Amino acid sequence: MKITALAGGVGAAKLISGLAGIMAPGDLTVVVNTGDDFRWMGLYICPDLDTMIYTLAGVANPETGWGVAHDSFHCLERLGRLGCDTWFRLGDMDLATHLYRTNRLNEDYRLSEVTRELCRQNGIHHCILPMSDDAVPTRVHTNEGELDFQDYFVRRKCVPHVEGFSYAGADRARPAPGVLAALQESEAIVICPSNPYVSIGPILAVPGIRDALRRASVPVLAVSPIVGGEALKGPAAAMMRQLGASPSAAGIAGLYRDFVSHLVIDRCDEALREEIEAPGMRVILTDTIMRDRSARAALAAKILEILSCPA
Amino acid sequence: MKITALAGGVGAAKLISGLAGIMAPGDLTVVVNTGDDFRWMGLYICPDLDTMIYTLAGVANPETGWGVAHDSFHCLERLGRLGCDTWFRLGDMDLATHLYRTNRLNEDYRLSEVTRELCRQNGIHHCILPMSDDAVPTRVHTNEGELDFQDYFVRRKCVPHVEGFSYAGADRARPAPGVLAALQESEAIVICPSNPYVSIGPILAVPGIRDALRRASVPVLAVSPIVGGEALKGPAAAMMRQLGASPSAAGIAGLYRDFVSHLVIDRCDEALREEIEAPGMRVILTDTIMRDRSARAALAAKILEILSCPA
Repeated sequence: MKITALAGGVGAAKLISGLAGIMAPGDLTVVVNTGDDFRWMGLYICPDLDTMIYTLAGVANPETGWGVAHDSFHCLERLGRLGCDTWFRLGDMDLATHLYRTNRLNEDYRLSEVTRELCRQNGIHHCILPMSDDAVPTRVHTNEGELDFQDYFVRRKCVPHVEGFSYAGADRARPAPGVLAALQESEAIVICPSNPYVSIGPILAVPGIRDALRRASVPVLAVSPIVGGEALKGPAAAMMRQLGASPSAAGIAGLYRDFVSHLVIDRCDEALREEIEAPGMRVILTDTIMRDRSARAALAAKILEILSCPA
Repeated sequence: MKITALAGGVGAAKLISGLAGIMAPGDLTVVVNTGDDFRWMGLYICPDLDTMIYTLAGVANPETGWGVAHDSFHCLERLGRLGCDTWFRLGDMDLATHLYRTNRLNEDYRLSEVTRELCRQNGIHHCILPMSDDAVPTRVHTNEGELDFQDYFVRRKCVPHVEGFSYAGADRARPAPGVLAALQESEAIVICPSNPYVSIGPILAVPGIRDALRRASVPVLAVSPIVGGEALKGPAAAMMRQLGASPSAAGIAGLYRDFVSHLVIDRCDEALREEIEAPGMRVILTDTIMRDRSARAALAAKILEILSCPA
């Protein structure tokens, strides 16, 4: 079964690693958020692409959710002594990815091409695509003004009150080569358990992608990133609350109602099933917390089972 | 006494660290070779400036002569796994310097300004200047064709037979701000024990610098980098041989005869004194091998002694 998945950070990478383990390489395409990409010291950094690549390569740091396991920070420490901002924690091995990518982009390769190279060199056989080769930086509108995403997320630790989001340049951006074709040729589409505003939102903001989902005649299955009223990681629930949405799987259903046909929610949210279910929105209960590799595999298998018998 | 020194790599850095330890900060200006600067993975690398800065900051690696002591190579190792050339050994702490410099140059700061910042952040109070803010890359003409300096020096390990040198762009280069003024205002000029072709040669090729030395009415003192017919480090003697010059302090005297008034040679080369001494060229014998800090200090003190009583 050919599947295309939309993916953000750590939760998405876990689910994709589960799917990658049981799907044939040609069958899985992953479209990754690049809305939180940023430049630091001249380096072009793609946090979600990197988390995806490191996780699939088996070198991700399981404790932090970002970076490379057992990395050192000698370069960053010295940059700090040179007076540089070091709030974004870049390890020495991690830096190699950013140096490589930046150098290739400066040589006029496109982000999708560099991503293909990084996947090949990391032994990844599934197709990982950035949502776009064009920059679409997420802006967080807050009570302290408009902030770049990394500024809000890393430096300000999500403290400012969120009033909205925008995706700069989205109107002029094009999906990366292969994204629309993958969506059109898939037998199912998966929305990973990622933040709906700052992981899935930027992908949906790229012209053509949300339309492709709305028009899809195949199942579009989302896994709720909100479990028991909280995000497993990150600020999704807090953002929903601040924006007046219900911080729950039901709130997720509301945000995705125009294109999702199947919503996978955690067993602990069984009470929400009735509130969510509606014509064109089936709810499936299962264990969605991917504590270890076998839990990733189990959720991935469950999703394939649902999609192979979607009615 | 105000002194300006022309400097290349390791030997120069040792002598300058000796001088820096006994001179007042305002009195010492060092003009450093940038002919072997190069770009790697998009980073702008200045080997001689870095060796000078690391040595004066007390963090240089004494074993290699380049890089930072106790550095790790985690980034480089990973770049190697990504398929990159890794013949130039850049450590993780060392990388911080190159990232910082490259980022500043991309922000349109000049190399001399970035060098001033790096000196300040490394606690260096003497004035370190690149020979030029313009690129003047050394080309090595060999029996295998024309090679970039680092290609000849690091990758090819000085194996090709040298037929000559050129300094690309030298005719259009200007001395960095402060270089000519320092030469004009100094009470003495020191040519460090550096390779005459690829360390001092590029500096002399920048328009105005060799002329300033020739016209200088103050002592111009060179320390021979050749001791007992061999370079203490690097390919200077081999290059002299390949180019038909005598690989000796006498050969150095020949190369510098148009501007040097005092040549410091090692005691072991006493037999050469007569051959070298001439009107306008005084020879001083002393211990020139800087095995440790006290030897650096002793040679520096000896030089100051000569210069304070030059006749």
